[in-house]
Amino acid sequence: MSVQEIPYKIYLAESEIPEAWYNVRADMKNKPAPLLNPGTHQPLQFEELRPVFCDELIKQELNDTDPWIPIPEEIRKFYKMFRPSPLVRAYCLERKLGTPAKIYYKFEGNNTSGSHKLNSAIAQAYYAKMQGLKGVTTETGAGQWGTALSMACAYFGLDCRVYMVKCSYEQKPFRREVMRTYGANVTPSPSMTTEVGKKINAEYPGTTGSLGCAISEAVEAATHMEGYRYVLGSVLSQVLLHQTVIGLEAKAALDKYGVTPDIIIGCAGGGSNLGGLVSPFLGEKLRGEKDYRIIAVEPASCPSLTRGVFAYDFCDTGHVCPLAKMYTLGSEFIPSANHAGGLRYHGMSSILSQAYHDGLMEATSVEQTAVFEAAEEFARVEGILPAPESSHAIRVAIDEALKCKQTGESKTILFGLTGTGYFDLKAYEAYNNKSMTDYIPTDEDLKRSIDLIPRFPGNLM
Amino acid sequence: MSVQEIPYKIYLAESEIPEAWYNVRADMKNKPAPLLNPGTHQPLQFEELRPVFCDELIKQELNDTDPWIPIPEEIRKFYKMFRPSPLVRAYCLERKLGTPAKIYYKFEGNNTSGSHKLNSAIAQAYYAKMQGLKGVTTETGAGQWGTALSMACAYFGLDCRVYMVKCSYEQKPFRREVMRTYGANVTPSPSMTTEVGKKINAEYPGTTGSLGCAISEAVEAATHMEGYRYVLGSVLSQVLLHQTVIGLEAKAALDKYGVTPDIIIGCAGGGSNLGGLVSPFLGEKLRGEKDYRIIAVEPASCPSLTRGVFAYDFCDTGHVCPLAKMYTLGSEFIPSANHAGGLRYHGMSSILSQAYHDGLMEATSVEQTAVFEAAEEFARVEGILPAPESSHAIRVAIDEALKCKQTGESKTILFGLTGTGYFDLKAYEAYNNKSMTDYIPTDEDLKRSIDLIPRFPGNLM
Repeated sequence: MSVQEIPYKIYLAESEIPEAWYNVRADMKNKPAPLLNPGTHQPLQFEELRPVFCDELIKQELNDTDPWIPIPEEIRKFYKMFRPSPLVRAYCLERKLGTPAKIYYKFEGNNTSGSHKLNSAIAQAYYAKMQGLKGVTTETGAGQWGTALSMACAYFGLDCRVYMVKCSYEQKPFRREVMRTYGANVTPSPSMTTEVGKKINAEYPGTTGSLGCAISEAVEAATHMEGYRYVLGSVLSQVLLHQTVIGLEAKAALDKYGVTPDIIIGCAGGGSNLGGLVSPFLGEKLRGEKDYRIIAVEPASCPSLTRGVFAYDFCDTGHVCPLAKMYTLGSEFIPSANHAGGLRYHGMSSILSQAYHDGLMEATSVEQTAVFEAAEEFARVEGILPAPESSHAIRVAIDEALKCKQTGESKTILFGLTGTGYFDLKAYEAYNNKSMTDYIPTDEDLKRSIDLIPRFPGNLM
Repeated sequence: MSVQEIPYKIYLAESEIPEAWYNVRADMKNKPAPLLNPGTHQPLQFEELRPVFCDELIKQELNDTDPWIPIPEEIRKFYKMFRPSPLVRAYCLERKLGTPAKIYYKFEGNNTSGSHKLNSAIAQAYYAKMQGLKGVTTETGAGQWGTALSMACAYFGLDCRVYMVKCSYEQKPFRREVMRTYGANVTPSPSMTTEVGKKINAEYPGTTGSLGCAISEAVEAATHMEGYRYVLGSVLSQVLLHQTVIGLEAKAALDKYGVTPDIIIGCAGGGSNLGGLVSPFLGEKLRGEKDYRIIAVEPASCPSLTRGVFAYDFCDTGHVCPLAKMYTLGSEFIPSANHAGGLRYHGMSSILSQAYHDGLMEATSVEQTAVFEAAEEFARVEGILPAPESSHAIRVAIDEALKCKQTGESKTILFGLTGTGYFDLKAYEAYNNKSMTDYIPTDEDLKRSIDLIPRFPGNLM
């Protein structure tokens, strides 16, 4: 191990961009449970999924045996426009905290989508293009995923139709304009362009929508248009697979300097960024080669891992999607309106859910004012305005670093800085004006939506 | 010269961040004319400038003999958080255009201020801190400079007071919130906190302000508060000096691969980014070592180089600042309200004005719909949503590359991509909605403000 001075930012060369994604399921003794057909409760087969997803992506979704999936050259080329992303040594934050801990973060925000979402968007657009499709449909909440997909589709000349949760469509006109600049067609959801949208509009007049509802509309649109498929930005195993470029690059950069993290921290909504960051480390843990503390951080207002149940559940409000086994708060759960930013999905990646269930990973939840306090502290010394989502990880990284200050331990902490907060300034404004509040659902609140999880033999026992 | 494959992004190592700024004035045969005292019309001396500017910055402003000014280690440390910035080979744009030209751009947008402004902000904050000051005041229009300065002041624990042009303050609340997150005090200008602000509010009730007016307020505030100085984000020679890190890094990156640009293109508002990019190349030209075509691109709605006069003029509306010799449209000139983005200053850096006057640089002006067309084309293939300002340079780079396509020449084009457009989506929205229009001032329009340029012996002859 060389004693080189570690730079502020470790950049790998473009030739060091991973040549394959790492499929952590191959190394898991307890595999994540398969997706089920919501009608028959039987594992879904390739053919059943073909009307919804691209063929190659279904293969990736169902593949829990091959540890490495080669990254096509055309995707690696696109990656070169914004990857390798920097692994940053947070010297300024360490100095500010006065901690003996060594803090690193993998920064995925240096691209126009502003987040890690582009890693999977370009892969999904590529496979759609290779299959000769005309376009793809999707949903977006805060807008990162829709932006990333618009960029990827523009690159390959694919039509991109985005159902954007209506309240975001109205409150985040700038996100909408970025997508339009990249040529995407953006529709506020629920809309009158789908049957499920019309039904929800009729049942709940004036509703401002939800992610689950937008998913249902996007799936319906894809399956009713010739040459279209549906794509999703999180939760699915294929998405987590694509996001492993984050963890593979982070590990390669640390290895270069002989650094091994003690604690790895990431925010968790659907789980794809966290899963992507931790997969290579989790793999070593699964193979008994090394041990790491892995911490998933979720918002106290949407606590699927820390307060949900491990069961098969619907992925969307309209119940048109497969059932997935995951930690869930129930598909009808909608976080309080005061909740800022993403991380508002009711469920969690089935890979991470299984890992958590098997004790391979910890989870903790944090309240949003504490999250923004950490975001501000980080921004002022590290010079990057972080996304509210990413700031959940910053909060816990700071807390762990402060524990080291108390104990005098010099632990190495790695966290995922998934994106920038340039489109979240309404939330920063609320924090700056001290009008931001916290909200923790009561047990009763959670019981209401958890009780709606489907009951069938073997589920929710 | 090695025949290495050129990567998409050339990153220098942090150890290769320049150790000194390059002061191109030292190599100019015709030095830029000195700043004049607006009362006596005599060259301003160090002592006269001390109430307004930090001592060390005045020395830099007046220094036209030393070619290299060392960059203090503390500034280089801060630079390491976001520099070296990437020099990007625009492979995707070249392919899209089908041009034999080779296009490179130096991208300064990968930091939270979203632009090159941070290069000078951190330098100016550092010298204020070293002088033991409490804080600094400044003005901001679109908000990039105010954001950059807020970040720099947060880093050094300096108070930062920003006078923000009132229409931007109201139309760009998100820029304001970024500054507040970094702890800055942001006041809409004209305000009632200064004499000049009160006077302008009384004369023009309901005015939404101008950059020239905000400058006057910031200068008054700085000179009336103990322990404060005024700082400026463009136009001044010291700012251009700090921005030479852009050109020095770009040149070092190209040199590494044995590449020499034929044409160097940058957008020009006050001129600091263009000056920073071209200085090292202009130096070679001045010393007779090499030749380059250098093109300044300005908006057709604010054409100081292409339609202004070369004369001493006021730098601000309130006429509290020194007189500078420059290409100017007159200090009362305000671009049409339909003008998007920055590049709205009535004058131009005295260094670039002199270089242009001496035939060392060309200038051209472009209309904004053509600029946004180039911006959209660039965004869709290169994956970066460019700032409207930077897109002026993109427009001309594309035009030059298309000329190469016609002639079959394989020229090497370098342009400055100064920033990102995340806070300019109102303008993109207008373009997307096809409601954006062009505006070119008539000769009469220009005559009105040019006629107000001060007449004294030797000026405006």
